[in-house]
Amino acid sequence: MKWMRCRHAGRELFGALEGDTLAVHAGDLFGEHRATGERLAVTDVEWLMPCQPGKMLALWNNFRAAAEKNGWAVPAEPLYFAKTSNSFAAHGQAIAAAPTEAGRVAYEGELAIVIGRRAKNVPVDQASAHILGYSCANDLTAIELLNRDPAFPQWTRAKGFDGFGVVGPVIETDFDLSAAFVRTIVGGRERQNYALADMIFPPHELVSRLSHDMTLEPGDVILCGTSLGVLPMKPGTTVEVAIDGIGRLVNTYG
Amino acid sequence: MKWMRCRHAGRELFGALEGDTLAVHAGDLFGEHRATGERLAVTDVEWLMPCQPGKMLALWNNFRAAAEKNGWAVPAEPLYFAKTSNSFAAHGQAIAAAPTEAGRVAYEGELAIVIGRRAKNVPVDQASAHILGYSCANDLTAIELLNRDPAFPQWTRAKGFDGFGVVGPVIETDFDLSAAFVRTIVGGRERQNYALADMIFPPHELVSRLSHDMTLEPGDVILCGTSLGVLPMKPGTTVEVAIDGIGRLVNTYG
Repeated sequence: MKWMRCRHAGRELFGALEGDTLAVHAGDLFGEHRATGERLAVTDVEWLMPCQPGKMLALWNNFRAAAEKNGWAVPAEPLYFAKTSNSFAAHGQAIAAAPTEAGRVAYEGELAIVIGRRAKNVPVDQASAHILGYSCANDLTAIELLNRDPAFPQWTRAKGFDGFGVVGPVIETDFDLSAAFVRTIVGGRERQNYALADMIFPPHELVSRLSHDMTLEPGDVILCGTSLGVLPMKPGTTVEVAIDGIGRLVNTYG
Repeated sequence: MKWMRCRHAGRELFGALEGDTLAVHAGDLFGEHRATGERLAVTDVEWLMPCQPGKMLALWNNFRAAAEKNGWAVPAEPLYFAKTSNSFAAHGQAIAAAPTEAGRVAYEGELAIVIGRRAKNVPVDQASAHILGYSCANDLTAIELLNRDPAFPQWTRAKGFDGFGVVGPVIETDFDLSAAFVRTIVGGRERQNYALADMIFPPHELVSRLSHDMTLEPGDVILCGTSLGVLPMKPGTTVEVAIDGIGRLVNTYG
C-alpha cells in the first residue's frame, strides 16, 4: 500500500494511492480506517506530508561508504539529531531559501522510516512490527553554519530552517530495502545513487535502539542518514529524491 | 495572570490560577477565551504542562558566570538544541530514571519563554509582543552521554529521554526578570541561585534571533539556558525549580 495525505477543495484527506488515483479513506491511518468510495485524480490535489510527526529524528554517519570517504569511524551506536516541526515540508512544496547569513545549503537524499505503533524499549526482533512503512526524504542542511561556532556544532539550527525537512510523497508499507537505491537528482543531474544495503544501523535496529532512548509514537519519522554525493544547491534548483518501490519526492529550493 | 492546564475528572482544562483556585476558561489560550465561572481547588487536579509546544528549543552557554567559570567564550550568536516531544513533562509528574547505560543525569534549573504569537523574522524591538509569558523549567541532561562519541556530541539524545523537559507550573504573563533569580533546590538543598540579569541573550533578543532561523508558533517554548551549580542527581531525588513571581516547579527523578 502507498498511503498519502493531501488538501483538496479545503479538506485535508488521506488514503491509498492507486496509480494516479487517491482512494480516500476515513478514520485514523494509525488506527481504524476504511475506504469511503470517493476517488480523486492526484493531479488535482495539493500534496501534504504523508504523516504529521510529533518528532523527526535523523541519523548522522550511517552509511559505510560515506564514513570511509570522510574518514569517520563506524559509530558504536546510532548518532542522531532532531529536525524541528517548522522544517516539515511536503512533496511539491516550494522551499524558501534560508537567510543569506546561514551560508550555503546542501540537499541530502535519504530513506525515511514512519513509525506505526508506539515503541518503547522494543527488542530488535520485534522492531519491524512498529514500522508502518517508508518514505523518501530530503534532509536540507546549512553546511557552513554547522561548525561556525568552534565550541558548539549547530545541528538543530543548521537542519531546522523552515522547509528543511521534506518527507514524501507516500508511505510505502511493502518495501524491501535490501536491493534498493536512493537517487538524488539535482537540477536534472544525478548526484547521489547509493545502496540502502550499505547502511550501518538498518531500520529495525534504529527503531529498537532509539526506542530505548525515547518513546516513539505513531507518525514519528526517523531519517536513516545520507551517503556520498552531497553538494550545495543554487537557489532555484529542483531536487528529486527517488527510491524505487516508494516514489519520487520533488521540490524546488530557493 | 498565571495560566495553567490540568486534568480533572477526565477533562483537560485550562484557566487562570488565583491563589489556590483555578478559574476555568473555555476557548484557546492563544486566541479567544473567557472564564466559564467554574472554579476548582488546585489540590484536586493533576497538573499538565501549561502549554503544548510544537517545538522546544534550549540554549547552551547563555549565562556569563557559567561561561567564565567553564572557560567558554561568550558566543557571537545564540547556540541552541531541541528537546523532543517525548521529553515534555509537567509539574508534579514523576520522571522515570533514564536507562543505566545513559550514565549520570543532571538537573538544570532554567527560565522558559512561552511564545504567544507566531514569530518570523521579528525585529528585536517588536519581539516582546510575541511572548505570552514565562515559566520554570528543568532541562534534564544525561551528562556522560553528551560527549561519549568523540565525533558527534549527542545533544538530542542526552536531553531527550522521556520526561527530561519539565516546564511549569504556570505561564506568568507579568514577569520582570531584571531582579529575578532562578533557584534549584535538590533533595532539600539549594544548588543553584543565579540572577536572570546575567543572561547573555535576554528573551526578546532570543525570540528575535531564533525567529530568523525558524518560524516560532504559539505555545513553542525556549529554555534560556542554565548557570552555575549543575550536579548529577541520585535516583529518588526531589528537584524544585523556583522563580519568584512565577512559581515552584517540583518533580521527583528516578
